[in-house]
Amino acid sequence: MIKKINHVAIIVPDLDSSLTFWRDALGLKVEHVEEVKSQESIVAFLPTGDSEIELVKPTSETSGAAKFLAKRGAGMHHIALEVDNLDEMLVDLKAKGIRLINETPIIAAGGYRAAFIHPESASGVLVELYQK
Amino acid sequence: MIKKINHVAIIVPDLDSSLTFWRDALGLKVEHVEEVKSQESIVAFLPTGDSEIELVKPTSETSGAAKFLAKRGAGMHHIALEVDNLDEMLVDLKAKGIRLINETPIIAAGGYRAAFIHPESASGVLVELYQK
Repeated sequence: MIKKINHVAIIVPDLDSSLTFWRDALGLKVEHVEEVKSQESIVAFLPTGDSEIELVKPTSETSGAAKFLAKRGAGMHHIALEVDNLDEMLVDLKAKGIRLINETPIIAAGGYRAAFIHPESASGVLVELYQK
Repeated sequence: MIKKINHVAIIVPDLDSSLTFWRDALGLKVEHVEEVKSQESIVAFLPTGDSEIELVKPTSETSGAAKFLAKRGAGMHHIALEVDNLDEMLVDLKAKGIRLINETPIIAAGGYRAAFIHPESASGVLVELYQK
């Protein structure tokens, strides 16, 4: 079952200049900033209601985030939906013919388990399923 | 003040085929479907926790949504942040040099007042401020 939007991830070339908008102009608070080595990026987490805005700055040129940035520029990268049973959902989605990028969970920011659904199956949207 | 993510809007070429993923595979419920004439589109609202996923299908070839679809294909179009005082926030953002698409509120889906911030000021993201 989908519980909520956990976060919306936005790829940015520079955290400081992005924070002048999201933090300084909109007034969102930065809860913490974390280097996510597995994703070769630094992530700033800004709680927004029951969800978060995540600003993701690539730290290498080879990561998925860096390639997205080079190809499309800064912008929304994925939406993460929080689920209560990731393993069960992945089996169910696969049985329904949904194209999964990760058929078994990976470890995402914060140490939580997650899996991505291919945009081809999700109206052009990169969807992350995320279990806390 | 930003209260929460009100919705994430996804532009799609066909509602029925998108609903096979968001409703049938993920299990989200369609709360209602509404024709938003001012935006030349039909919108399906799918509550997700305290927010909504909105699937937006253009009904003309001249709307912003239709142009987005023709240029970039289906995908995330904007994120809407719910605010408690839209007028005050627009004055404040303008004073801070943020580029606004709407300096005065427009009427959005559901009859609520809203205004868009230009992606140039918002890390490449089209941000809607939305007051209920």
